Amino acid sequence: MCLINNERIDMLYANNIKIIQSADVFSFSLDAVLLANFAAPPKNAAGRIVDLCAGNGAVALFLSTKTTGKITAVEIQARLCEMAQRSIKLNSLEQQITALNIDLADSFKYLKKDAYDTVTCNPPYFSDLPTSKKNENPYLAIARHEITVDLQKIIEVTSGLLKMNGKAFFVHRPERAGELFSLLQAQRLSPKRVQLVYPKQGREANMILVEAIKDGRPRGMRFLPPLVVYDDNNQYTPLLRKIIYGK
Amino acid sequence: MCLINNERIDMLYANNIKIIQSADVFSFSLDAVLLANFAAPPKNAAGRIVDLCAGNGAVALFLSTKTTGKITAVEIQARLCEMAQRSIKLNSLEQQITALNIDLADSFKYLKKDAYDTVTCNPPYFSDLPTSKKNENPYLAIARHEITVDLQKIIEVTSGLLKMNGKAFFVHRPERAGELFSLLQAQRLSPKRVQLVYPKQGREANMILVEAIKDGRPRGMRFLPPLVVYDDNNQYTPLLRKIIYGK
Repeated sequence: MCLINNERIDMLYANNIKIIQSADVFSFSLDAVLLANFAAPPKNAAGRIVDLCAGNGAVALFLSTKTTGKITAVEIQARLCEMAQRSIKLNSLEQQITALNIDLADSFKYLKKDAYDTVTCNPPYFSDLPTSKKNENPYLAIARHEITVDLQKIIEVTSGLLKMNGKAFFVHRPERAGELFSLLQAQRLSPKRVQLVYPKQGREANMILVEAIKDGRPRGMRFLPPLVVYDDNNQYTPLLRKIIYGK
Repeated sequence: MCLINNERIDMLYANNIKIIQSADVFSFSLDAVLLANFAAPPKNAAGRIVDLCAGNGAVALFLSTKTTGKITAVEIQARLCEMAQRSIKLNSLEQQITALNIDLADSFKYLKKDAYDTVTCNPPYFSDLPTSKKNENPYLAIARHEITVDLQKIIEVTSGLLKMNGKAFFVHRPERAGELFSLLQAQRLSPKRVQLVYPKQGREANMILVEAIKDGRPRGMRFLPPLVVYDDNNQYTPLLRKIIYGK
């Protein structure tokens, strides 16, 4: 397995997945781990799953331990998609995961409409406003800011990909939650299950996980017990240790 | 002070407010206490506050300890509004609180549009569907089910009452949160601050508190630290004891 430049191999101990990372272009963060933990794809081989804004493939790789269904990772950046492809090989998951280097706006040239059980997405969190302070590194800027795509487009494509009653799983920042809920509802996706992530006890949430069902009834939202990341000594809480280290 | 039939006087120890209650027609619950705790009316005498679906006046009475502004309580049920009026006297708050026995749909016959800083509401939680199992007691049925009013109407009136940048504070059940967020946004009210209430650690939320700002920007939602009501021994948590007993 060739590593390029400053790449390294990281491991998520909870599921023994190895991932090629590089601080120069992309490293997955806790957000990807929590999204994969929150997502509930069908377990069987008939399941069809798409991960949008896949980056270096972290979410798709983690999901492979929860399902025997086929997973397609969609990533616009060639450099990141190629890292995902090498990580797929590194974990011998070529039969289960395919990484496509395409603009998600072109998804329906490559992927069938109304055909998927599950769509996951850890999108760029920040708007691309003229006033936005963006990372000078273009790889990181595209991953973090809505430069090549915005939330509206992502949710349109998500809804188009899903079967009726298919499920979408998103992670986002709380400050975008209002927009996320209304865009989901406008695209036939009913938010159903929500989990807030708090950095510490007594602090405001800094992450929100949302499950939405295509053509689901508009009522019945559930808020799962909160996830608190660090204890008062800045150590992972037992629940987070279980998610990250598996024990 | 006359008490009628099975009425009793309860006291909220955190603020020494006395409230006339009756299990036969209406008793305030934790929801009202948490709504008043969550709401942030202007503190000064110029503040103008309306409490919709006021019941026996609990929220309006509790709010009087957070502001010197004038408070109007709107309640459709004559029996409950009359209880609220006696409780207002009992606490010598006739100068600050007025209880109106009107249908909130008629609010603008009595109250000015675009004139209020704060609107609070603890609405009926349950839809009035043909299949709904309703309380046989009509007082309780009207307080709990959307018989005389629905959430859409409540939010229309809330938005009409508020000044630009005025704030609405709602308590509701999590299963209605999706609907609450979209109705608020459709009526120029941007949800800004959310707090989930969990009955116990590790359980799903059973109450949601939402602050929305009239003509606020659509972004910037914040999720406050969760409120957990009971500890593992079924005693109020320290935070809840503080809210209820003031210590």
